[in-house]
Amino acid sequence: MEKALIQWLQQQFGATRFATVGIGDDCAVLPRTDREWVVTCDAICEGVHFHSSQLSLQDIGRKALAINLSDLASMGAHAKTALVSLALPRSSHLDDAKKLFTGMAALAAKYDVEIVGGDTVTWDQGLVISITAMGTAPSTGAWLISNAKPGDQILVTGDLGGSILSQHALFEPRLAFAQQWSEADGIIRACTDISDSLGVDLTKMAKASGVGFEIDLQSVPIAADAYVLAKTSQRTALQHAISDGEDFELIIVVAPEAVDKILSETKDIPLTRIGEFTESTEWLAKRAGVSEVFQPVGYEHSMGDESE
Amino acid sequence: MEKALIQWLQQQFGATRFATVGIGDDCAVLPRTDREWVVTCDAICEGVHFHSSQLSLQDIGRKALAINLSDLASMGAHAKTALVSLALPRSSHLDDAKKLFTGMAALAAKYDVEIVGGDTVTWDQGLVISITAMGTAPSTGAWLISNAKPGDQILVTGDLGGSILSQHALFEPRLAFAQQWSEADGIIRACTDISDSLGVDLTKMAKASGVGFEIDLQSVPIAADAYVLAKTSQRTALQHAISDGEDFELIIVVAPEAVDKILSETKDIPLTRIGEFTESTEWLAKRAGVSEVFQPVGYEHSMGDESE
Repeated sequence: MEKALIQWLQQQFGATRFATVGIGDDCAVLPRTDREWVVTCDAICEGVHFHSSQLSLQDIGRKALAINLSDLASMGAHAKTALVSLALPRSSHLDDAKKLFTGMAALAAKYDVEIVGGDTVTWDQGLVISITAMGTAPSTGAWLISNAKPGDQILVTGDLGGSILSQHALFEPRLAFAQQWSEADGIIRACTDISDSLGVDLTKMAKASGVGFEIDLQSVPIAADAYVLAKTSQRTALQHAISDGEDFELIIVVAPEAVDKILSETKDIPLTRIGEFTESTEWLAKRAGVSEVFQPVGYEHSMGDESE
Repeated sequence: MEKALIQWLQQQFGATRFATVGIGDDCAVLPRTDREWVVTCDAICEGVHFHSSQLSLQDIGRKALAINLSDLASMGAHAKTALVSLALPRSSHLDDAKKLFTGMAALAAKYDVEIVGGDTVTWDQGLVISITAMGTAPSTGAWLISNAKPGDQILVTGDLGGSILSQHALFEPRLAFAQQWSEADGIIRACTDISDSLGVDLTKMAKASGVGFEIDLQSVPIAADAYVLAKTSQRTALQHAISDGEDFELIIVVAPEAVDKILSETKDIPLTRIGEFTESTEWLAKRAGVSEVFQPVGYEHSMGDESE
């Protein structure tokens, strides 16, 4: 199976335009570039990040690549290549593996990413897909989580919360934002993608940058699925938007003088301003003009009255 | 557990000398270089590449990195960075994960490789370690499997066969050879590492280069463990040397005029000349002056009389 799969992969992905050497040798070889390389490696596992009974193999393959492209987007990178490491259940057929790659390949083609290497193992246990994605950094440097300054404005892409219903698998990695703004010298101060939750990832960024923030809770964009979940979860839709994981939207930190430009000129991606970073290292949440302490996780207690 | 592990990893590996950004942001960032990058990604799985009952966690971690460094060595690369993707059984303790990384770190330090990123997931199934290793190519280009020319001499490092007894886990990736000869312009024509077997990897190289070869069977260096296996396997030690996998020695292809120099000046790594590539695309094996067809796998039949 592995040999047949490698032959198929060479036919599908063998002719690379970008890599000097792709699938077939011991390693891939990437050409010289005058940019820094941005590299990430995230895996998804059966029963944790997906259930084969609920998601097609194409969508599972797509998700494995998409979470890594989302990381590249959060650095402002132009995505270039991916390497795919598969641990396949022994019961898998060649067609199953092809479906995984077909899902990846469609997303890769959309963003001009090439699959240039990896390996496949069959074993007696569940499916694991580990992907390494690489891209080139903006010429002025990658968008780090440690660069936010007091006064910088906090934007998010899309709507948040309830991702477990479908967004976690079908989200669009926000590479288009990175591609549009990667060379806008210094306008984007910092960026991260929401994998743990808005609350956790925002506070992580604040700590890394040595700043605090104030969020306007009424401005947080809430996904329709957060409202669906709230009907039965005994939590509010806003709580879902703040503490649910796997939204894979971006938290974008913008120099204050540039926020209008970013909001008005960004193409095809909804953006919402939700707050700003502050000199004080406190985490604050404002609602109807009143500030309280922001709770990144387990927001239930202080937000218990949110639906009133 | 994952959070505590990441904190420990940041303490252990956070201060990178090579990477611009290491563990802690969404991606690692690698500095500009005037070399091509060489990238590989191989995984090892419980029950296929190791058995936790037979190998320490340190040795399992070491192997996961070593197989990738072996791939870099086979390209003539200088190894620089690694990203580690772990799928850990839910029963694992923090100390178990630390042991895996401790085994990797000792090998990484030896070859000046930095662990700059990755991710960790706990799940209900067995241990999978997927590592992506990156290095810089020789200035004249990576050592490809497709560059062998008729007349080029075939060398191998170390001794072959019987790796299942210990070599598969404790082998030394041959980075020292790559480091010594990476800038010896054009002397090394091609290279690969023996992961499938001498027979399979040699014929793969011959096909990729469009050449044939003739091997002198009596010159193939046979490991002591191949003789140990041969006592009970009903196969000869030479058969083990040719068809066993996971030796992780290098097959090195050298321009004919340079073979004496390589053999006499290579430091600390045993090298043996075993044959040469030929204009004819036949695969030949010579013994006591008589040529026969070389059988890369299942060498048992034509080699049945080898011990006579």
